Amino acid sequence: MPAASKRRRVGVAVIGLGGAVATTAAAGVEILKRGTNQMSGLPLAGISVPGLVGYEDLVFGGWDLNGQNLADAAAEHRVLNDNQLEDTSPALAAIRPWPAVASSAFCRRIEGANMREAKGHRAAIDAIIDDLRRFKAANDIDDVVMINLASTERTPADAPALRTPEAFARAIAEDDLSIGPAMLYAAAAIEAGVPYGNFTPSVAADAPALAELARRGGVPVAGKDGKTGQTLMKTVLAPALRARALHVDGWFSTNILGNRDGQALEDPDSLKSKLGTKGSVLDSILGYRVEDHIVDIRYYRPRGDDKEAWDNIDISGFLGHRMQLKVNFLCKDSILAAPLALEIARVLDLAKQRGEAGPQEQLSLFFKAPMTAQGRAPEHAFHTQERMLAEWLGLPVPAAAAE
Amino acid sequence: MPAASKRRRVGVAVIGLGGAVATTAAAGVEILKRGTNQMSGLPLAGISVPGLVGYEDLVFGGWDLNGQNLADAAAEHRVLNDNQLEDTSPALAAIRPWPAVASSAFCRRIEGANMREAKGHRAAIDAIIDDLRRFKAANDIDDVVMINLASTERTPADAPALRTPEAFARAIAEDDLSIGPAMLYAAAAIEAGVPYGNFTPSVAADAPALAELARRGGVPVAGKDGKTGQTLMKTVLAPALRARALHVDGWFSTNILGNRDGQALEDPDSLKSKLGTKGSVLDSILGYRVEDHIVDIRYYRPRGDDKEAWDNIDISGFLGHRMQLKVNFLCKDSILAAPLALEIARVLDLAKQRGEAGPQEQLSLFFKAPMTAQGRAPEHAFHTQERMLAEWLGLPVPAAAAE
Amino acid sequence: MPAASKRRRVGVAVIGLGGAVATTAAAGVEILKRGTNQMSGLPLAGISVPGLVGYEDLVFGGWDLNGQNLADAAAEHRVLNDNQLEDTSPALAAIRPWPAVASSAFCRRIEGANMREAKGHRAAIDAIIDDLRRFKAANDIDDVVMINLASTERTPADAPALRTPEAFARAIAEDDLSIGPAMLYAAAAIEAGVPYGNFTPSVAADAPALAELARRGGVPVAGKDGKTGQTLMKTVLAPALRARALHVDGWFSTNILGNRDGQALEDPDSLKSKLGTKGSVLDSILGYRVEDHIVDIRYYRPRGDDKEAWDNIDISGFLGHRMQLKVNFLCKDSILAAPLALEIARVLDLAKQRGEAGPQEQLSLFFKAPMTAQGRAPEHAFHTQERMLAEWLGLPVPAAAAE
Amino acid sequence: MPAASKRRRVGVAVIGLGGAVATTAAAGVEILKRGTNQMSGLPLAGISVPGLVGYEDLVFGGWDLNGQNLADAAAEHRVLNDNQLEDTSPALAAIRPWPAVASSAFCRRIEGANMREAKGHRAAIDAIIDDLRRFKAANDIDDVVMINLASTERTPADAPALRTPEAFARAIAEDDLSIGPAMLYAAAAIEAGVPYGNFTPSVAADAPALAELARRGGVPVAGKDGKTGQTLMKTVLAPALRARALHVDGWFSTNILGNRDGQALEDPDSLKSKLGTKGSVLDSILGYRVEDHIVDIRYYRPRGDDKEAWDNIDISGFLGHRMQLKVNFLCKDSILAAPLALEIARVLDLAKQRGEAGPQEQLSLFFKAPMTAQGRAPEHAFHTQERMLAEWLGLPVPAAAAE
Repeated sequence: MPAASKRRRVGVAVIGLGGAVATTAAAGVEILKRGTNQMSGLPLAGISVPGLVGYEDLVFGGWDLNGQNLADAAAEHRVLNDNQLEDTSPALAAIRPWPAVASSAFCRRIEGANMREAKGHRAAIDAIIDDLRRFKAANDIDDVVMINLASTERTPADAPALRTPEAFARAIAEDDLSIGPAMLYAAAAIEAGVPYGNFTPSVAADAPALAELARRGGVPVAGKDGKTGQTLMKTVLAPALRARALHVDGWFSTNILGNRDGQALEDPDSLKSKLGTKGSVLDSILGYRVEDHIVDIRYYRPRGDDKEAWDNIDISGFLGHRMQLKVNFLCKDSILAAPLALEIARVLDLAKQRGEAGPQEQLSLFFKAPMTAQGRAPEHAFHTQERMLAEWLGLPVPAAAAE
Repeated sequence: MPAASKRRRVGVAVIGLGGAVATTAAAGVEILKRGTNQMSGLPLAGISVPGLVGYEDLVFGGWDLNGQNLADAAAEHRVLNDNQLEDTSPALAAIRPWPAVASSAFCRRIEGANMREAKGHRAAIDAIIDDLRRFKAANDIDDVVMINLASTERTPADAPALRTPEAFARAIAEDDLSIGPAMLYAAAAIEAGVPYGNFTPSVAADAPALAELARRGGVPVAGKDGKTGQTLMKTVLAPALRARALHVDGWFSTNILGNRDGQALEDPDSLKSKLGTKGSVLDSILGYRVEDHIVDIRYYRPRGDDKEAWDNIDISGFLGHRMQLKVNFLCKDSILAAPLALEIARVLDLAKQRGEAGPQEQLSLFFKAPMTAQGRAPEHAFHTQERMLAEWLGLPVPAAAAE
Repeated sequence: MPAASKRRRVGVAVIGLGGAVATTAAAGVEILKRGTNQMSGLPLAGISVPGLVGYEDLVFGGWDLNGQNLADAAAEHRVLNDNQLEDTSPALAAIRPWPAVASSAFCRRIEGANMREAKGHRAAIDAIIDDLRRFKAANDIDDVVMINLASTERTPADAPALRTPEAFARAIAEDDLSIGPAMLYAAAAIEAGVPYGNFTPSVAADAPALAELARRGGVPVAGKDGKTGQTLMKTVLAPALRARALHVDGWFSTNILGNRDGQALEDPDSLKSKLGTKGSVLDSILGYRVEDHIVDIRYYRPRGDDKEAWDNIDISGFLGHRMQLKVNFLCKDSILAAPLALEIARVLDLAKQRGEAGPQEQLSLFFKAPMTAQGRAPEHAFHTQERMLAEWLGLPVPAAAAE
Repeated sequence: MPAASKRRRVGVAVIGLGGAVATTAAAGVEILKRGTNQMSGLPLAGISVPGLVGYEDLVFGGWDLNGQNLADAAAEHRVLNDNQLEDTSPALAAIRPWPAVASSAFCRRIEGANMREAKGHRAAIDAIIDDLRRFKAANDIDDVVMINLASTERTPADAPALRTPEAFARAIAEDDLSIGPAMLYAAAAIEAGVPYGNFTPSVAADAPALAELARRGGVPVAGKDGKTGQTLMKTVLAPALRARALHVDGWFSTNILGNRDGQALEDPDSLKSKLGTKGSVLDSILGYRVEDHIVDIRYYRPRGDDKEAWDNIDISGFLGHRMQLKVNFLCKDSILAAPLALEIARVLDLAKQRGEAGPQEQLSLFFKAPMTAQGRAPEHAFHTQERMLAEWLGLPVPAAAAE
């Protein structure tokens, strides 16, 4: 049997492997392996693109402060139903997160946490790279992609250290605290030549220094903040309102969610990061500033991992007459997010094979705040983003007009 | 002063001139003439395309069973606010609908109605053509477009008379009753070389015989059934659900409206015509049959000309987990419809100048059931329709990504 | 051990024992026996009234056209979760519905159904009484109550046969077809001295002849049509709107549900019965006719046993200014209905012990169309109904002001 | 002509006379005088109670920092429609607010404001009493009632000065800053023997010292915070959920409003006062603590004086199964509030005639946080409150069961 027949296996190294999204993604791949044909929710499931790794050929590893195995973690998150938990339990129990790597520069020692303290930033980066190498070696993996699914970090002040590769290198050497944990992981990925996708609002590969390093190093990067619920709806509805010239007088959005993500957002700094990636979408699509654009997020335990958004949109039409549109989305956070994380990993891996480097704009479809090549304004309109990815993949365009 | 400097004036001959949509459109043009700059709701307001007639250069005329002048009619419909009624009253009072033309073959004599009975189909067509000629002559108009804004007619059985121009000609001669009133107007427009747009669900220029006559005669036609509220939302949301591979398990739509349109739909046959144009949109966009797709329309007087839609959408995502999306649209029927009628008139006029003939697919954006060239399936996805029009107009594509 | 210490056991003979409500009620009693203390949903759970039988002392039996045991039936209805199905499976598997009794006068023989055909009305009544006797004997039961949880029947024309006990007796003897199946069960209960509660919209003990027979025979009866979702909300909201003098200009109600009940309502005649019990509530509470009161019910499979109601209420306030109230209730039909059925059975049994006869108005709280003593208009306002029951039970009034 | 035949005229001295609620109330009385029979929104409109002053016999006066006449103020608030503004303009233009009285102890001098600065607390109280006397004398008024419709003040710390009449007297003498402006008005009313109603969340007559002074002085007082929209719905729905034993797992409430009230609530301290009166209602009615009870209020300009509430209620029913109820109330703040202010004034006047003193619990129906006689817990359930007022007025009980 010739070597060519062997299928490529791609490792997905996840920051936050024990979280609800990561365990759902890992369990999902196990279920897909059984061939039960549950492809809903996977945007690229039906298509055939040369070089795009199969879902079943993804191998999960990664870091988490919580050391419990993925079966236990998944059971706690209560995203999957009982049958699904049972079916995937053996496979998930075998995956245990690696200790999270922390630079000693951040003096946030957590008692009992699954954590490896490294002597400063440089040592931390090295430890992460070391983890990636061991992951690849131990699992007969052809290539690795890193995906950030950890909790949201606060947004750093616009530090000079983040502006250029040179300043960044100095800041690493000096254990500069404007370089946060998410950036150390991203720096390690770029140094190791591993594509990096950021599903969180944290600043990471989108720091100008790191984006430039990725470009120079030939490493594809993408982000940031997965577009799953309310912002998805915004980027779908706003282009239509614009096309009909219906003026948006105000857009009030409120969210209730009861999972760890929601709890993390009780911290005002994290909430700020989140609201940041949600905010500019509307003005960008409409072409004018919506002054009464309000976004609320509230931690509300009865919702659990489910998430609910209520939007009220005030619009003016012909001759100034006013109308209202209200959208109530009862969705499931991790169910929407997990398949996007899988697609981002697959496309980043393909981008690496195709020799792409730096920010991958064709992935804009999956992000609230898409990274772009230097200086370019991001595209937010959902259908345009859809076309960008279809074109990059070489699929017929417009994708939605196939019938 | 050279002749070239004179602005083209285009007549809009409306079937149903006294209705809420038509009076709103006519009043709107009057208000636009005053330069108050209320361009919201007009999809093509901001663009510049050579040959596209200005809103202020549209001249209104048309037929209605109710002979009251447009100022009185507008006051009854209660769509405009008091200021707008007052401002436009002098101009609208000067417009009085022509008697509706009816073939004596339909023995539906209405006491006291503003109606001209013609001796059979042929005579009716001739009378309509005559009206068009007089309209042009009396108003210093360069060209005329006909727009159907009348009440919905019942859908005829699939009669042989409607299939070919030859069969249609015979049927006209024989006063065949499978040729309804809307078709007589459409036939007259085509014979007179006047572009025809059908904003209602009635069968008219979409009868194969008439579509073919339009093509042969070099007359642009478009339709049918204006896409204003709930169906608009469907064609905006469904492509996004498809792009995210979220499977639609069911879509329940209900509408309440209290204007004459709503009352007309209390007649089961008219309702059927309406539901017909609403029905296939979803399956066509999604690529599979949604078995639990239900559309209800109810006449509910407290809503008046306002219209309210409530949609419940059941979707399945990753690993079969189910979610719900609910949309409540509190809209104004005529406010949404009137500017679309204006744009259809303008684009049809431009199509005529460009030498286009037959069904104008670039207008799909404005219709629930877009007419297409022979045999082609209609495009329903809103953003693709938007692009089709932008391309035809020669505007930059994608229109929504201009920033 | 003195006899006095033995707890009273009451049999609940259910028409439609295999349905979703009945199996949920029977399973619920099993779960309550385990003492897991899940008393939510049971309106009378926390109170202590002498003579009121305990939930755990209810014994289930009854008729159904489907002969499968209750464990299998419950599994099909998918109302309970997997754990609950598993826990109650042994107990429910031991209960198998008796053959439904049918008078041969209705020539509706159903192949393979769990059915006993009796030679005419009289024989059918005797067979039902016989079933009741055997139920009591076989289960060491002190008393029996009959509850109708079967599918909705069409409403008969106002036949003379239903007006007086005498006419009814003749009609039974003559196998008059204006006496439907539900009435035969009710007649049997009354004849056997067994209290009868009607949770469906079918005409049964509310036929004047049967109500009078119940009164004469000293048998408590109650009905009809359990008040669970949308109508419950109506009778809660309407009294408040009245108290604030907010005028109801219109009330649009739509329902989607996907269980057997919903499917039965696809039959226009059954739907009519249902809408009948829903209709008059509003006018009665408000004291004026709401002309634009519309109630839609639609069979929509994705909802399963869950039920969803959407109400739009248009109100006028001070100086005629208009407002809107919209209520979206995502509820579970059987989960709301089953505990009410249990309470109705318990209170009817208590009424029997207290020597009450005929319509039991104190149960109005649980019905859409409460039966009343001759000629009296029913009370619909929820809080007044609540007080009527509290007073009858001898509880402190007002119940809701206990804190 | 005997004196007895003269109708009593009652003055309503309003704090915040230029606000939206007060101008709507004053305009409403003018419109009622014309006999146009628009009684909707007035809870006590249809009843006849001896001694209850007629709406048309109310005379408006009061204080406001803004000195514009009521016609100008009403036009700015945009609550009334154009016809109503025009009709009431002459009468309203004749009413100009008196300068607001401010104690010099608060050094909040506002340039250009319609304000009279008094040398300390005592002088301020005297000035207010003086205003009341002049109001009565100038208008041929039999009696006066004071109603607080001003903006919400911050809640003071629980100061000793507010606890007893004696401590309060000392604090007045010492210009103690824990005595806020609202308390000075209330103290003046009580001293002058004028009944006092507090429609705002500000601390006033509900300070224990003032409540006791009112009792001793034979002055009826009532409050606080008018119950118009979302809290009204809560006190209507929660008793029904309790009656059905549906457990409230969480209640998420959000409000958007765009009038001055909303703007004032942008101040975190005022917001706190508001949320305070909204908060305890639920737990009190249900009899247990709802931990996930969240109330958001947001200033959102497109809503103007209209107000919109969206509530999501999570409930558990039989066997722990979960359901959701969502309520969307599109209401008009001042339209709901103004008639309540009128009824409070009328009932307080009647209470004075009847010799009542101190907190008037029969007015609980109209308040979010009803004042009670010393130490008693307030009644929050709407229908019980309704009965309390009906009983006090001597109306048939239950009021809602009249048909």
